[in-house]
Amino acid sequence: MTETDVSLPEKDALNRTPRGDRLHIALFGRRNAGKSSLINALTRQNIAIVSGVPGTTTDPVYKSMEILPIGPVVIIDTAGIDDTGELGGLRIQKTLAVLAKTDILLLVLDPSGDIGSYERELITRAGENNVPVLGVINKTDLHPEAARDSRAAALGIPLTAVSARTGEGIEQLKQELIRHAPRDWTAPTIAGDLVDPGDTVVLVVPIDLAAPKGRLILPQVQTIRDLLDHDACALVVKERELKKALAGLSRPPRLVITDSQAFLKVDADTPPGVLMTSFSILFARYKGDLEILTAGALAVDSLHPGDRVLISEACTHHRVEDDIGTVKIPRWLRQRVGGQLEFNWVSGLELPADLDGYKLIVHCGACMINRKEMLHRLMQANRAGVPVVNYGVLIAYLHGILPRALEPFPAARQLLEEGDGL
Amino acid sequence: MTETDVSLPEKDALNRTPRGDRLHIALFGRRNAGKSSLINALTRQNIAIVSGVPGTTTDPVYKSMEILPIGPVVIIDTAGIDDTGELGGLRIQKTLAVLAKTDILLLVLDPSGDIGSYERELITRAGENNVPVLGVINKTDLHPEAARDSRAAALGIPLTAVSARTGEGIEQLKQELIRHAPRDWTAPTIAGDLVDPGDTVVLVVPIDLAAPKGRLILPQVQTIRDLLDHDACALVVKERELKKALAGLSRPPRLVITDSQAFLKVDADTPPGVLMTSFSILFARYKGDLEILTAGALAVDSLHPGDRVLISEACTHHRVEDDIGTVKIPRWLRQRVGGQLEFNWVSGLELPADLDGYKLIVHCGACMINRKEMLHRLMQANRAGVPVVNYGVLIAYLHGILPRALEPFPAARQLLEEGDGL
Repeated sequence: MTETDVSLPEKDALNRTPRGDRLHIALFGRRNAGKSSLINALTRQNIAIVSGVPGTTTDPVYKSMEILPIGPVVIIDTAGIDDTGELGGLRIQKTLAVLAKTDILLLVLDPSGDIGSYERELITRAGENNVPVLGVINKTDLHPEAARDSRAAALGIPLTAVSARTGEGIEQLKQELIRHAPRDWTAPTIAGDLVDPGDTVVLVVPIDLAAPKGRLILPQVQTIRDLLDHDACALVVKERELKKALAGLSRPPRLVITDSQAFLKVDADTPPGVLMTSFSILFARYKGDLEILTAGALAVDSLHPGDRVLISEACTHHRVEDDIGTVKIPRWLRQRVGGQLEFNWVSGLELPADLDGYKLIVHCGACMINRKEMLHRLMQANRAGVPVVNYGVLIAYLHGILPRALEPFPAARQLLEEGDGL
Repeated sequence: MTETDVSLPEKDALNRTPRGDRLHIALFGRRNAGKSSLINALTRQNIAIVSGVPGTTTDPVYKSMEILPIGPVVIIDTAGIDDTGELGGLRIQKTLAVLAKTDILLLVLDPSGDIGSYERELITRAGENNVPVLGVINKTDLHPEAARDSRAAALGIPLTAVSARTGEGIEQLKQELIRHAPRDWTAPTIAGDLVDPGDTVVLVVPIDLAAPKGRLILPQVQTIRDLLDHDACALVVKERELKKALAGLSRPPRLVITDSQAFLKVDADTPPGVLMTSFSILFARYKGDLEILTAGALAVDSLHPGDRVLISEACTHHRVEDDIGTVKIPRWLRQRVGGQLEFNWVSGLELPADLDGYKLIVHCGACMINRKEMLHRLMQANRAGVPVVNYGVLIAYLHGILPRALEPFPAARQLLEEGDGL
């Protein structure tokens, strides 16, 4: 990783009400607009209702769910308060209470019914509360012409036409959700979900020429802080002191996290029973989606000489002599494939609009972009049907360390097993 | 501490040859100009020749010494190569080799002898190597008129007149040394001198509202890095997990370092035999001089109602509601003195030129200024005869935690004992 430690606290971040970093998505819409079926469609790939606070008939219900690849979200189902087609009295109060907790409002529109003053007032209220509103035109399987409904267009909000029943448009809606997520939205945790309070986690931090003088790189600092936030202890060591540090603990640590460059030595020095992973893997998950990236790594084995590979970096940075993206990764891939590949490089804010013809996208570690932007790219690649992997996961795969590094992450690990990537 | 985590690596710092952070001061001058007596005068308060590589008659000698309050330095004694009054052949080579390692060149001038081409050539060479040259006119006790020597003035370098014999001018010369030290010069270590390789140090890091979101504050990061640089391990915990973390170690840690706000709890949870201090104390030493500041804390007990106290902050920052410098410290001092005090506040780049009438200076933690600037202020206060303490040392003293926090620092601790500040 090449992140430098830039870390003035973001003012925005400090001023927002903490919501446990789960994206809070409120669903509004008239009765029968299709709110419930939309929730099902969004979460279909991985329905995991962790908790559902049962509401009265007029109370919104908060449902903790997982929407891939967005991650853990809270869906605020307002079926109880918004289905009468008007917004008055107690309903306004309850709506405002919901808006105060909402990151994005999905306004479900049913073009076969009314669209008008209820929607306009809701949009006004949302605007007053700085909540972005996305219009969702549902049931396009039944009413294909609805996607061009003039009353919906007159609302002046971004519109996505979906069919909750067939799934059409759902991927695009997810992309819109990511696009309108708060700028400072992140995954809920880096490693905190892997530990219990009081656990000790060992962090292996090599100090080499690339380390900034007198500092740690940002992912290391963020990981320490995340562990503290989850009531765990972080034992920070260089790779040479790891063995001694482990011997100094009265029981094995819960997890060992190492910089990738020290993986082989740390692998050897960490007893087999102890879970171990790398900062790169943790941040592949934190900044993106570990399963998508693992699938991308497996796609390496389907590459053939002559295939086109896109190497994408989020920023233009000073290239070091033997640059990872321009020299090392192409060399390792050529060796793996046993022949030449056609590489293209892009850097900057967007993937190329046309991804046709690429067999693989290899993306940088996303240190300079946020989760929102990285997920946007993953989904763009996904829509184009091109597998995508990042530097960290690819390098771990090519060096044979991915199986151990994925042990703390059963779903991604299972993907690897099924893909025979062990 | 209120430091925020600003930490792009300084480009200058990365490009300089590391010299172990000891200021390297080379002494040049003709035979009998008084180089040796000047070394003695500079180090008189605390002569500690740690190592002296014996040289041949024409090799410079590197002497590791302590100059208070500058800290550990290397004096490069060039008596062997520069005493013939000319700079030719082999001597030029050796001089250039010395210049490559030199932070500041002291050119000792003897106005009773020659001043001319030798000095001018040396100044030219130093300029080519980006080394600042300070002229020192020695023996002013014997030749008071020498301070205005026209040949010395013609050299175009800053001049300080001293008497190595009487000590006159030595303080000012130290101040000049600090002023011309490299901008990125720091103390050699934060805590590394307190540990042996393989030691474990526990860092207690409370996570409260003041902590930047998802980060650690800079002094904590710097301390972790410093420990790693000295082959030690850093076990980072919140105060609530300290007891459990200590129990999880198979032997006691070498040192416990805590944020000051958790000192009392950490004091109670850390066994008496274990050394313990605070980040504030470590940084008081790193950024300034622990002995000067301890003496300043003791001066609190000589304050009387009506005395004038100067509170100095290096930067203007957003004041929090109950600000440490404007509210808390004045209140604590009034309580201690048992009456009103006259407070003045300054903030910005310099102490007031006129410190007359102040009985104490209370300085901020210097998070936004470097060691060089802080030492400059300490010496300015010293010259004016005004005791100076910083926030961290003062608060530790007023709360009765200074004795334990100084245990790792025998010289400062002894000052405290002698001052009856226990």
